[in-house]
Amino acid sequence: MNKNKKGVGVKMVKVGIVGATGYVGAELLRLLSRHPQAEITYVVSESYQGQKISDLFPHLHNLHNLICQKLDLQALADNTEVVFLALPHGVSMNIAAYLLKKGKKVIDLGADFRLDNLAVYEKWYGQHTQEQLFTQAVYGLCELNREKIKKADLVGNPGCYPTTVLLGLAPLLKKKMIETGNIIIDSKSGVSGAGRGLNIGTHFAECNETLKAYNVGKHRHKPEMEQELSKLAEEKVQITFTPHLIPLTRGMLSTIYVKLEKGISLAEVYQAYADFYAQEYFVRLSSFGKLPETRYVARSNFCDLGLAGDEENGNLIIVSAIDNLIKGAAGQAVQNMNIIFNWEEKTGLDCPAVFP
Amino acid sequence: MNKNKKGVGVKMVKVGIVGATGYVGAELLRLLSRHPQAEITYVVSESYQGQKISDLFPHLHNLHNLICQKLDLQALADNTEVVFLALPHGVSMNIAAYLLKKGKKVIDLGADFRLDNLAVYEKWYGQHTQEQLFTQAVYGLCELNREKIKKADLVGNPGCYPTTVLLGLAPLLKKKMIETGNIIIDSKSGVSGAGRGLNIGTHFAECNETLKAYNVGKHRHKPEMEQELSKLAEEKVQITFTPHLIPLTRGMLSTIYVKLEKGISLAEVYQAYADFYAQEYFVRLSSFGKLPETRYVARSNFCDLGLAGDEENGNLIIVSAIDNLIKGAAGQAVQNMNIIFNWEEKTGLDCPAVFP
Amino acid sequence: MNKNKKGVGVKMVKVGIVGATGYVGAELLRLLSRHPQAEITYVVSESYQGQKISDLFPHLHNLHNLICQKLDLQALADNTEVVFLALPHGVSMNIAAYLLKKGKKVIDLGADFRLDNLAVYEKWYGQHTQEQLFTQAVYGLCELNREKIKKADLVGNPGCYPTTVLLGLAPLLKKKMIETGNIIIDSKSGVSGAGRGLNIGTHFAECNETLKAYNVGKHRHKPEMEQELSKLAEEKVQITFTPHLIPLTRGMLSTIYVKLEKGISLAEVYQAYADFYAQEYFVRLSSFGKLPETRYVARSNFCDLGLAGDEENGNLIIVSAIDNLIKGAAGQAVQNMNIIFNWEEKTGLDCPAVFP
Amino acid sequence: MNKNKKGVGVKMVKVGIVGATGYVGAELLRLLSRHPQAEITYVVSESYQGQKISDLFPHLHNLHNLICQKLDLQALADNTEVVFLALPHGVSMNIAAYLLKKGKKVIDLGADFRLDNLAVYEKWYGQHTQEQLFTQAVYGLCELNREKIKKADLVGNPGCYPTTVLLGLAPLLKKKMIETGNIIIDSKSGVSGAGRGLNIGTHFAECNETLKAYNVGKHRHKPEMEQELSKLAEEKVQITFTPHLIPLTRGMLSTIYVKLEKGISLAEVYQAYADFYAQEYFVRLSSFGKLPETRYVARSNFCDLGLAGDEENGNLIIVSAIDNLIKGAAGQAVQNMNIIFNWEEKTGLDCPAVFP
Repeated sequence: MNKNKKGVGVKMVKVGIVGATGYVGAELLRLLSRHPQAEITYVVSESYQGQKISDLFPHLHNLHNLICQKLDLQALADNTEVVFLALPHGVSMNIAAYLLKKGKKVIDLGADFRLDNLAVYEKWYGQHTQEQLFTQAVYGLCELNREKIKKADLVGNPGCYPTTVLLGLAPLLKKKMIETGNIIIDSKSGVSGAGRGLNIGTHFAECNETLKAYNVGKHRHKPEMEQELSKLAEEKVQITFTPHLIPLTRGMLSTIYVKLEKGISLAEVYQAYADFYAQEYFVRLSSFGKLPETRYVARSNFCDLGLAGDEENGNLIIVSAIDNLIKGAAGQAVQNMNIIFNWEEKTGLDCPAVFP
Repeated sequence: MNKNKKGVGVKMVKVGIVGATGYVGAELLRLLSRHPQAEITYVVSESYQGQKISDLFPHLHNLHNLICQKLDLQALADNTEVVFLALPHGVSMNIAAYLLKKGKKVIDLGADFRLDNLAVYEKWYGQHTQEQLFTQAVYGLCELNREKIKKADLVGNPGCYPTTVLLGLAPLLKKKMIETGNIIIDSKSGVSGAGRGLNIGTHFAECNETLKAYNVGKHRHKPEMEQELSKLAEEKVQITFTPHLIPLTRGMLSTIYVKLEKGISLAEVYQAYADFYAQEYFVRLSSFGKLPETRYVARSNFCDLGLAGDEENGNLIIVSAIDNLIKGAAGQAVQNMNIIFNWEEKTGLDCPAVFP
Repeated sequence: MNKNKKGVGVKMVKVGIVGATGYVGAELLRLLSRHPQAEITYVVSESYQGQKISDLFPHLHNLHNLICQKLDLQALADNTEVVFLALPHGVSMNIAAYLLKKGKKVIDLGADFRLDNLAVYEKWYGQHTQEQLFTQAVYGLCELNREKIKKADLVGNPGCYPTTVLLGLAPLLKKKMIETGNIIIDSKSGVSGAGRGLNIGTHFAECNETLKAYNVGKHRHKPEMEQELSKLAEEKVQITFTPHLIPLTRGMLSTIYVKLEKGISLAEVYQAYADFYAQEYFVRLSSFGKLPETRYVARSNFCDLGLAGDEENGNLIIVSAIDNLIKGAAGQAVQNMNIIFNWEEKTGLDCPAVFP
Repeated sequence: MNKNKKGVGVKMVKVGIVGATGYVGAELLRLLSRHPQAEITYVVSESYQGQKISDLFPHLHNLHNLICQKLDLQALADNTEVVFLALPHGVSMNIAAYLLKKGKKVIDLGADFRLDNLAVYEKWYGQHTQEQLFTQAVYGLCELNREKIKKADLVGNPGCYPTTVLLGLAPLLKKKMIETGNIIIDSKSGVSGAGRGLNIGTHFAECNETLKAYNVGKHRHKPEMEQELSKLAEEKVQITFTPHLIPLTRGMLSTIYVKLEKGISLAEVYQAYADFYAQEYFVRLSSFGKLPETRYVARSNFCDLGLAGDEENGNLIIVSAIDNLIKGAAGQAVQNMNIIFNWEEKTGLDCPAVFP
C-alpha cells in the first residue's frame, strides 16, 4: 500500500498508468497518490523505463516504490484493475482492446475513444483499428454523462477545450435557448496544454511574452465538440473555433458567443444555468456579471462559468475556465474512475486552487 | 539640441510632452529622443516635478537635460510648437483648448477628442467642457485618415483596441463585403495597456499566470470603435467586444469574427486587404492562412494582419496584432506628428520588433 | 463545523486569523479549511469588513460561512483558542499581549516576536511596546526549535528568507564545519513575497521580465538570520545578504557560499546533512550534486536542500528552496500549531507541489 | 544595397553571417540591417537552407532579399569582407581558418577563440584543430581590449557571463583593490541565453515559474573568466561561479562578492569605477547605492554597473547587468566590427532599452 494514506483496512483498487511521465501522467501520479481508495501498482513509461518516479519527479518523493516499466500488456493486466492511458492518439486503441478483453476498466485520456464516427476519426487523426469499441466507449464528461459512465468499461476522457465548451453550453442547448448555426468559440490555453514533447512553438523564448491564434479551423477538438454539442441540442450544431496560446503554464479559458433565441431573457438564462448545475460540486456559476479567471481554478478540478449579455444585439457571452491538466485531463479521469467505482465523486479531487 | 542626433543644421521642431512619466509618456520620450526632426523641449509630470528624466528612466540616460516640470500652460506654450498630451481623459480638454488658441498643434493620446458625439462622450466618460473642438479634432488613425490629419491642429489619437479593430476591418467595410450587424471582437491585451497607476488588478501576483475577460460590454473603446466602423461602412455597425487581460507586458491581439456577404470568396477578401494596404509601410498582411503573433510587432509601430476562413459557415476570422504602447499609442502619435509636419511617415519609428 | 471535513466526532480547535485577506492570510484560510482538527471560527480583515471570504476568494467557495470582521479583541478572544496574526510589524504586538492574557495561543507571522533584543528590533523596525514578551516568545523554526515550540504560548513565525538560510546552514553550524565570519547569501524571491499591498515595484509591468537586487545590506531579515545563526553556531556569525526579486509568483531560493574548515570533506558534509534531517518530513536533501528547483516545492510545505562543492578553493555551495508563502509563512505557522497541539506535524500540510 | 538605409553614396562593407537562424544570428540580422556602413550579403543556415529570412523572421520583413544558404566556404569568402560566426563551439574553428587565409576578418561568437591555452580548451570543450590561431585571436571585450581589437583579423567574442563579470571587476583588479583568491559570482540569466536548440530544460512549462542553479562549478565560462580576470589582476584569480536560470526571455545579472583590501574605502572604489569608465558609452555606472535592473539594459548594448558595500565585514557587492544576446553576444560583436573598421563605436547600436 502507498505510504501517506489512511488506507488501513480499506481494500484499495489497483491502478495502472501508461504514459506516466508526460504532464497528464504526472498529474495522475500526484492525484492518485493521495486517493484513499486507489493504489498505483503499475506505471509505464517507455522513455524512462527503469527509472524511479521519485527521481523523475522530485515533488512526488513519497511514491518511492514506483519504477517506470516498459509496456508489457500481460504484466499490466495482471497488476491492475483499472488503467489510465495517457498516450498520443493512435497508441491507446490496441492497448485498450487488450485490457478490456482481460476484464479491466480503461480510461483513455487521448482521442481514440472520444469520437463515435469512424470517418470523422480517420479524417482528423488517421487510421483506427478498434472501431468495434466505439459503441462500447462512453464519452467521459462527468457532469453530462454520469449515468452512462457508471456502467462503462471504456471511457474516452474529453479533450480540454471540449470540457470548457460543453460545460459552458449544455444548459443552453438542452433548453434550446440559442441559435445553433453560428456559435463562436474563442479559446485561450496555457502552454502545458501542448504537452511535454519538445517543439519550437513551446520553447520558452518562443512563447513567453507573446500571443497567437493557432490551428484556426483545423484543431482536432472541433469535431469532438460538434459531435457532443449536437447530441445535447438534438440537432446539428456548427461552431467556429479559434484556440490561442497564452504565456502561462496552466489554465484554459473559453469565451463563447451565442445568439439567444428571441424572447429569452438573461434572467432566464442565468436561472437555467443555476438549475442545471445546482447539484454539481465541480461546476461553479459566478454571480451574474462576474466572470471567472483561470487563477481560481488552476490546480483544481473545478470549472467556473460566468455569463454576460450584450443587450443591444441579443448576444450572450459565456466564459468558462478550467485547469487544462486537471478538469481538462487527469482530474476528470479520476472523477470518471470515482463514478465507475461508485465512490464519492470528489474523492481525491477536493483541492481548491492555490492563490495567488 | 538633443545629444545623439545627426540634427546638425536641421531646424528641429520643439515638442512638449504632458504626462511624461506614464508608460505612454515614457515611450514618447524614447521615440522622440531619436527623432531627427523633433526636439523635446518641455516635459510635464506633476508627480515627478523637479526630477530628471534620466534618473526616473535609467534607460534614457542620454536625455540628461530634461527635468519634469509642473503644468504651467504659458511656459508650455512658450517652449513648444507641438504638444503630446498623455493624460487621463477629462484632463486634456482644457489644456488642448489653451494650446490651440496659442497656435500650437496638439496630439491628445487620451479619449477627450476621439468621439464626435457629446452625448456619447458624456455617457461613457463624464462631462466635456470643450465640445466646440469636436469638429476641429481629427481621429488620428493614420492609415485611414491621413488626408485629414495633414491639415489637423488637434488630433485625437486612437485607443489601442480600436487601432487593431479598425485596421482589421477597414478593407471589408469599405468594400461592403461583410454583414455589419453582428461583428464579434475578442481582444487580448498585455498588462501595460492598463497603465502605470497602481491597481490590485495589475499587481504582479494578481495577474501573472492567469487569464480573464474584463469590462465585458462596458469597455470605453466600444463606442469609439462603433463610431469609426460605422463611418467606414457608411451604415450603423454593431459589435460585441470582449477584452481580456493576458500575462505579458506588451502586445495586443484582436480576433475578429465576421460573416461574409453571400458570394464573396476568401480569395477576393485577401485581395481586398492586399490592395487596401499595398502602400502602407506599417500594416503588414501575412500570407493567407498564416496568422500574426504579437512578438513580431512588439516594441515596433507595425500592425500585422492575418486572415483565416471557416468555409463551412461562411465566417471570416481576422487576427490583428500591435504593440499596445506604440502603434496603439505613442508610435501612432509620432506618426501623426510626422504626417502633420509633412515628414516621411516612418521617421523615428522605423525599428523592427526584437526577437526573441 | 466546516463543510468538507471528516471532522464528525472530533473536537475541533477554534482558530482565528487576523489579517485574513493578504497573501499569507489567504494561505492560512486555504490550509486551515482542510485541516481535520482545526476550525476557522473568526477572521478579521479591516479592509474587507463585512464581506464574505467566498466572494473575496472564489477559489475558497466552500468556506461559505466566514465573513470578515473588524478587529474586536474581545470577540476575537471569545471565539478562538489559537490566533494567527498575519499583520504588518508593529500591529501584532498589542493584539498578542491581549490574547495571551486571555489564555490564547498566538502565532505571529510578522516580525514582532522574532528578535530577542529590543535594541536590534527598534533599530530595524521601530518602537516595541511589549518587550516583556520577548522571553516568552519562541522562534518558530519547527525543525530547529521543536521542543520549545511544544510548550509555547507565543510563537514568532520565521521570515521566509531566514527559513531557507537557517535550514540550509544548521547542520554545518551545529557541527562547526565552516568559518562563520564571512557567509555569503544570495537569495532570490518570487514577487508574492512582497505582499499584497500596492507598490510600483510590484506593479506587473515593472517587475515582469526583469531582475534586480534590492535592499542590499539593508534587509530586515538580516538581523533575524544573524541572531539565529549565532545561536546555532554558539558564536557570532556574520553574513552578507543580497535578496533579489524574480518574475515569478511563488518560490524562494537561497544560494549560500561558505568556506569549509580545513580537513572537512564534502562527503562528511553531506553525511552531516543526511543525519541532521533524517527524521524530518518537510526537509528533503537532494542526492549529492543535484540541486533543488523552486517548482518542486512551490505550493507545498517542503524545503529542498542541495549541496555542491568547489574543490579548488574549499567553498561549499548550499542551495535551499521553499515556497515563500507556505514553508516561508502560512505552512510553517500551521506546522507550529500542530506542534503546539501535539498533532501529527504534517496534518493539513501533506500536499506535494503541483508539476508543471 | 539594403532597403531602409541612408547608405546612398557610402561604400558598404559586405558582411556574412554563419548560423543566422539562432537567437544570436537573428540579433545580428536585426542589428546589421540598420547599420549604415555594413550590408549583409551572405547568410548561412544549414537548417533553413533555401528559405527567406523575411519568412523565418516576420519582424525582419524588410530584409527581403536574403535567403539562407548552405555553407559553401568559397562563396562565403567571395561575397564578404567580414564574417560573423554564430555557431556551436567546435564548428567555427575550421571555417575561421579558411576565411582568414582568404584575407577576411572573422568575429567568432562561439568559444573556439576565447581561450588561449589549448589544454584548458580541450578540457572544457574537446579537441581543437586550429591552435596556431590562438595567438592571432583577440579576446573581444571591447572596453578592455580596444587597442588590440583595432588590429585584429580574428576576434573571439566573449561569453555573456564573462562580459558581466569582466566589466564588473576590471577597475578593482587593475587597481589591486581586492583579494583575488575567493571571488564569489552569483549570476542569473534569462532563458534565451540557452539558445534556440530544443531541450527539456528550456521547454516553457519546465522553466516558467521556477528558479534553479545549474552547472555549479562546471560551467564553461569559468575558465574564460579566470583567464581574463587573471590578466587584469596580473596574478592568478580564483572564482566560485554559480549560474542560475530565471524565467524571463532576456537579461543577465551578475552579483559579485569580493573582499576589499585593507584600507580601501567605498568612496575610493566608486571613484575608481567612475574614472575607469568615464569615456565608455556602453558602460553606465549607477549612482552609489543604486543598483541596476536588467529591464534598463534589455534589448540594448549597455552594461549597467552598481556598487554596494557591506561595511561590517569589508565586503563589496558589484551588480552588473546586460542583455545576454546584445552586449553578451551580437551587439558586442558589432561593436568589435566597428572598432576593427574604425567606425564610431556605437554605430548601429545606439538604441536604448524599451520600457516597460
